[in-house]
Amino acid sequence: MTSESTGPGSVRPGGRTARVRSAVLRAAGDALAEHGLAGLDLADVARRAEVGRTTVYRRWGTPASLVADLLAAMAEQSLPRTESGSLLGDLRANARLVRRTLADPRQGALFKAVLAAATCDPQTAAALHRFYEVRVAEWEPCVRQAVERGELPAATDTREVIRAVSAPLYYRLLTTGDPLDEAAADRAAEAAAAAARAGAFVPPTA
Amino acid sequence: MTSESTGPGSVRPGGRTARVRSAVLRAAGDALAEHGLAGLDLADVARRAEVGRTTVYRRWGTPASLVADLLAAMAEQSLPRTESGSLLGDLRANARLVRRTLADPRQGALFKAVLAAATCDPQTAAALHRFYEVRVAEWEPCVRQAVERGELPAATDTREVIRAVSAPLYYRLLTTGDPLDEAAADRAAEAAAAAARAGAFVPPTA
Repeated sequence: MTSESTGPGSVRPGGRTARVRSAVLRAAGDALAEHGLAGLDLADVARRAEVGRTTVYRRWGTPASLVADLLAAMAEQSLPRTESGSLLGDLRANARLVRRTLADPRQGALFKAVLAAATCDPQTAAALHRFYEVRVAEWEPCVRQAVERGELPAATDTREVIRAVSAPLYYRLLTTGDPLDEAAADRAAEAAAAAARAGAFVPPTA
Repeated sequence: MTSESTGPGSVRPGGRTARVRSAVLRAAGDALAEHGLAGLDLADVARRAEVGRTTVYRRWGTPASLVADLLAAMAEQSLPRTESGSLLGDLRANARLVRRTLADPRQGALFKAVLAAATCDPQTAAALHRFYEVRVAEWEPCVRQAVERGELPAATDTREVIRAVSAPLYYRLLTTGDPLDEAAADRAAEAAAAAARAGAFVPPTA
């Protein structure tokens, strides 16, 4: 959001402030994917983005703030969910989207860097948690619709079903050297759907 | 393994070499849990372990080699699987063991540090992959026995079932601020068992 008017040189809505943010976050993402959080330097990001160093220091201040803003932008810009009409179709679309992201060389390296940074920086961890909350909230309605259609038990924890789709893909990325292929995505979707149908995501009665 | 004889001062089998390794790896684990890989310094580890600096440099050389040896020792010393007689009982025992490890302040911090280090260091990544291979191989027979008992389809990928138990616990640790409680462990076990029974871990026919 910006209150600046769009001048004759602008190609996209949002004006200069939005263009600067976009260029800086793109550069920050490149730097993170290449070197991880330890190699994220505000002066280097300013140079890559062709933006004044003072602007970057004044607006973001620290590498952790820059990563937090990058995650906020990634949540804002991330793709809307697909609606296929069936639970398995929806979960498969979600799993394939997660897989494509993690298997993409730049995006995969970026996610690894941010996950690593979050293990030792609370601000990055909080921004990462918000990012996944947004993504889970985007896809959770497909599970709610399956409950409404009578495909799943009424008390299903719908958010946990979405998390169950992503979990094996992240686990594979971080703990094995195995490729993240489409078969792994489809298996993650099928396992989550089967577990949900069997009531594994119904919380135990208190 | 050591060929040194155990002198009168030794309290455990294995002799001085094994005692030095044990003290150094304990100190390395403490340092990693406190400061992550970036804060792992061989001289600091030698001081904590009360072992000569030269010994540590000569035997381990680099922080990455030290982490690789720590992971090898963790795999050697990790607990044997429990046998409960049922698939769900065995998977629940596995899930609860993983949860206890990740929820323990020192062990949880250590695993986070090693997972983070593995995202940017190939030697640590290879050592981490081997650690999980050993753990999966330890627990995989409980799935094989369930196949033999006719509880699961014959073509089940037994190792993937074990990975499916751990995945949601690691995902929760890394992507949410939510506590790793026993309910999360039990849900992970139930979801993996239900998905396995439904045939979600049977590879698609080529």
